[in-house]
Amino acid sequence: MNPLFASHIYQERRNKLGAAFSHGVALFLANGESSMNYPANTYRYRQDSNFLYFFGLSLPNIVGVIDFEKNRSILFGDDFTIDDIIWMGDQPKLLDLATQIAVDEVRPLAELSSFLKGKQVHFTPPYRAENKIELARLLGKNLDELTPSVDLIKGIVALREIKSFEEIAQMVEANEIGVHMHTLVMRYCRPGVTERELYGIAEGIALGMGNGTSFPVILSQNGQTLHNHDHSLTLEDGRLLVMDAGVENVMNYCSDHTRTLPVSGTFSTKQREIYETVYQANMAAIANCKPGIQNIENHKLAVTILTEGLQKIGLMKGNIEESVALGAHALFMPHGLGHQIGLDVHDMEDLGENYVGYDDTMQRSSIFGWRSLRMAKTLRPGHVITIEPGIYFIPHLIDIWKKEKKFEAFINYDKVETYKNFGGIRIEDSVLITEEGGRVLGKHLPKSVEEIEATINS
Amino acid sequence: MNPLFASHIYQERRNKLGAAFSHGVALFLANGESSMNYPANTYRYRQDSNFLYFFGLSLPNIVGVIDFEKNRSILFGDDFTIDDIIWMGDQPKLLDLATQIAVDEVRPLAELSSFLKGKQVHFTPPYRAENKIELARLLGKNLDELTPSVDLIKGIVALREIKSFEEIAQMVEANEIGVHMHTLVMRYCRPGVTERELYGIAEGIALGMGNGTSFPVILSQNGQTLHNHDHSLTLEDGRLLVMDAGVENVMNYCSDHTRTLPVSGTFSTKQREIYETVYQANMAAIANCKPGIQNIENHKLAVTILTEGLQKIGLMKGNIEESVALGAHALFMPHGLGHQIGLDVHDMEDLGENYVGYDDTMQRSSIFGWRSLRMAKTLRPGHVITIEPGIYFIPHLIDIWKKEKKFEAFINYDKVETYKNFGGIRIEDSVLITEEGGRVLGKHLPKSVEEIEATINS
Repeated sequence: MNPLFASHIYQERRNKLGAAFSHGVALFLANGESSMNYPANTYRYRQDSNFLYFFGLSLPNIVGVIDFEKNRSILFGDDFTIDDIIWMGDQPKLLDLATQIAVDEVRPLAELSSFLKGKQVHFTPPYRAENKIELARLLGKNLDELTPSVDLIKGIVALREIKSFEEIAQMVEANEIGVHMHTLVMRYCRPGVTERELYGIAEGIALGMGNGTSFPVILSQNGQTLHNHDHSLTLEDGRLLVMDAGVENVMNYCSDHTRTLPVSGTFSTKQREIYETVYQANMAAIANCKPGIQNIENHKLAVTILTEGLQKIGLMKGNIEESVALGAHALFMPHGLGHQIGLDVHDMEDLGENYVGYDDTMQRSSIFGWRSLRMAKTLRPGHVITIEPGIYFIPHLIDIWKKEKKFEAFINYDKVETYKNFGGIRIEDSVLITEEGGRVLGKHLPKSVEEIEATINS
Repeated sequence: MNPLFASHIYQERRNKLGAAFSHGVALFLANGESSMNYPANTYRYRQDSNFLYFFGLSLPNIVGVIDFEKNRSILFGDDFTIDDIIWMGDQPKLLDLATQIAVDEVRPLAELSSFLKGKQVHFTPPYRAENKIELARLLGKNLDELTPSVDLIKGIVALREIKSFEEIAQMVEANEIGVHMHTLVMRYCRPGVTERELYGIAEGIALGMGNGTSFPVILSQNGQTLHNHDHSLTLEDGRLLVMDAGVENVMNYCSDHTRTLPVSGTFSTKQREIYETVYQANMAAIANCKPGIQNIENHKLAVTILTEGLQKIGLMKGNIEESVALGAHALFMPHGLGHQIGLDVHDMEDLGENYVGYDDTMQRSSIFGWRSLRMAKTLRPGHVITIEPGIYFIPHLIDIWKKEKKFEAFINYDKVETYKNFGGIRIEDSVLITEEGGRVLGKHLPKSVEEIEATINS
C-alpha cells in the first residue's frame, strides 16, 4: 500500500467536488492490474490519478462512489480471501482502509451494478480497455455509448489544478529524486557508454527511490526526434544527448526535467550558441511566470527569444513579431512550452487537454507549433507547469518545408541545411506558481553551460 | 525495433504450424501500447510472445495472418504517416519488415475484417482487453463469444516448447544478465540498505542490459509470502532476503533465478539447516533432469528430499512416502517445482497451463501443493524448465492447519511454531534438457551456503 494523506483531505476534496452537483453520483473505477504477456504477468501497478485524488488507495478491484444527493461516499470492493492471504500475506481490511480515507461505507462489488440502476452516473473518460468494458457492463451500455461527464471533468480540473501545500511537498520530493537521477546520468555521460546503460541507471534510481519513471524515458542522441524512446546507440564524442525524464514519488506525484548534455563534456561553439538561446528562453519564461498572465504569453515570449537567437545565428530572418505569429519558429520548435504536472506528468490529460489547458474564453490555435501548446490559460497560485523550450533540426520537416518554400521570408534554408546533423536541445523545469511569481521545484539541477560541463566532468 | 532471427526461421515456424491445419487461418494480433494513467502515457512495450515467435516484429498496430489453405502469410498494417515520422524519426516500411520475416504480403489494416469474413479463424486466448475488443469487432462477435482454438493452442505449444539452438543462445544471454543482476544485489546486501534500493539496482541492470525484468520482482525479507511485491522494508541483521527475479534480453527471451541471502552475510545455524535442505532438493532435481522422465517425478524427488530434511530438523515425522503423497509437505512448499520458460517467464501461460505442462495422458492433481505444479509432463530435449524448491513458514497457513489438526501424523506443530518468524527460502535455476540430461543455463550464480556468504561479504 502507498502512504496516504490525512483522511480529512480526501473528505474535503469529495465535498468540494460535490458542491457543484445537486444529484447523481460520481463513479471512480480503480485501475486494474495490466497484463504484459499473459494474464498473471502484470506491469508495475499504477492507480488512476482521479481515484488517487479522491480515494487515495493504490489498489485494484475497488470502486469509489460519491453520492451527491446523500452527500456520502462509498467504497465498493471485497476483502481478500484466506487463500489470497496465504499467497499474499496479511492484507488490510477494506473497512480499515475506508476509515483512512474517511469514506462512509464499504459494500461488496457485486452490489454496485444494482446500486447504480436508475441513477445519473458521472464518470471520467476511460483510457484502459478493461475499465471501458467494466463501465459498459455496469451501466448496461455498449462500448461506443459511454459518454463521460463534462461537468465532472470540469469539476475535477478546478480542484486538481490547484495544488495544496501537502501536494507541493510531495512534488518537491519527486523533483529531488528527479534531480538526483539526472545528476547521476550526467556523471556517467561520456563517449563509449551506451544510451541503454544510462537509461538503466535512470530507471534504477526512479524505482529505487520512488514509484519509477513518470513517463517513458527519452534519452537519446537523436534529440531532434521528439518522441524517441530508442536507447540503442553508443555515446559519441561531439554529439548531444537529450534526456527528458521524470519520476513518481511513492505517492505518485510526478517530476519532469529535460537536460541536454554534450557527450564530450564540452559544448562546441555551434552547440553552445543554440544552447544559450534555449537557455535564455527557459530562464525568461520562468521569470515571467506569475498569477494573472496567460501561459500562452509565456509560450510567445519563449518562441520570440528563440527566434531572436536563431536570427543572430543566421538561421532565421525577417520581422520577428510576424514570424512568431505565423509560426515560422515551429520548424525549430514544433511543440508547446509545457503542460500542467501533478499526479500525472501531463496532469489530467485523461480528462482532455483542452479542459486542462484552455478555458471557455480561449480557442486553441490551429497553426502548426502553436496548436501543440497544452497549457495556454491564465496562471493561478497553486498551478504547477513545465517550462520546456527547445530547438531541433528535424531533417524530414526541413525537407518538407524547404520543398514547399514555406516561410522563406523567415527561414534561411541554406544555413539550416548545415545543421541537419545537429540533433536537438531542450531544457525543462517544473514551476510552481505562487502569489509572488514562479518557483522552480526541487533542488537546482545543473542547467547553464558552465554547470552542465562542470557536472559531466566532475 | 528489436533484433530478429534470420527470415527463414519465421517462415519455417509458420510452415510447421500450418502442417497440422488443412483449412482456415491463424490470426495473431500484435499487442498494442498499454496506457498507465492517460492514453498517451504507456508502459514499456511488450509484444505478444506468439506474435514474436511467428512474426518476430516487436511493434504494435499490426496483425499477422497465416492462411493455411493458401500456405501464405500476410502482415496487415499501415505505414507511418509523414506526421508520425516528424515526431518519431525515420521508420522502417512494413514491406521491408515483412521481408525480414519472410512474410508474403502486406495489406492495409482496414482490409482485415473483410479478409476474415467467412473464414475459419483460429486465435489464441486474448489476455489484453484491447485485443479482446478488437477480436470481437473483427469477428463480429460479442466479448463473451470469443472461443480460442484448442488446435492452434496445441500446435503452438508443440513448437514453442522445444527451443532451437538460436533460442537457447538468446536464453543463455538472458541468464547471463540475470546472473549479473543477482550477483550485484548480493554485493549490496547488508543491514540498513532498503529492499527498494536493491530492487532499483535489479531493475536498472535489467533495463540497462536487456528489455527489463521478465516479471514483477520479488525481493523481500518476507519470503514466506509467495506473491510478495512489496519492497518497503529496511534490511535487518539476522533476517533472510528472498530475491526471485529474471530479465528479458532484447529479443524477449527470459531468465528466472531465485536466491536467498542472509542479510548479515552469514547464515545462522537454523537458517543453514533449512537452506541446505532446499539446496539438496534443488541440486538433486537438476541432476535428475533427463529426456523421458516426467517432471512430476522431479517434483516428487524434490519434496521427498525436503520432507527428509524437515524430519531431520524435527519439523516433520512419519512415513515419508505417505506424507509426500498426501501433500503434508505443502505446508512448507505449497507451490510446484517449476515451469517452462522461454519467450515468457511462465512460457505460454496465456495458452493455458494445462496445455503447456500436462499431456492428454495426465490429470492435474487436486491435492493442495501438488495441484500447483505447472510442468508435470515428460521432459524432452529442448525443454527449458525452472527448478525452484523452497521451504516457507507461512503463519496463516500454519494457524489454519494446526487448528484443523491437519496431517498431525506428519507435522510437529509445536516445533513449527518456533519457526513462525523464520521467513522462507527458495533456490531456483533454469535447466535446458539435452539428449544427455540437464544443463543449468548461464554462468554459475553463487548458490551453496559458502558461495552465497562469500559473495555477500566480497
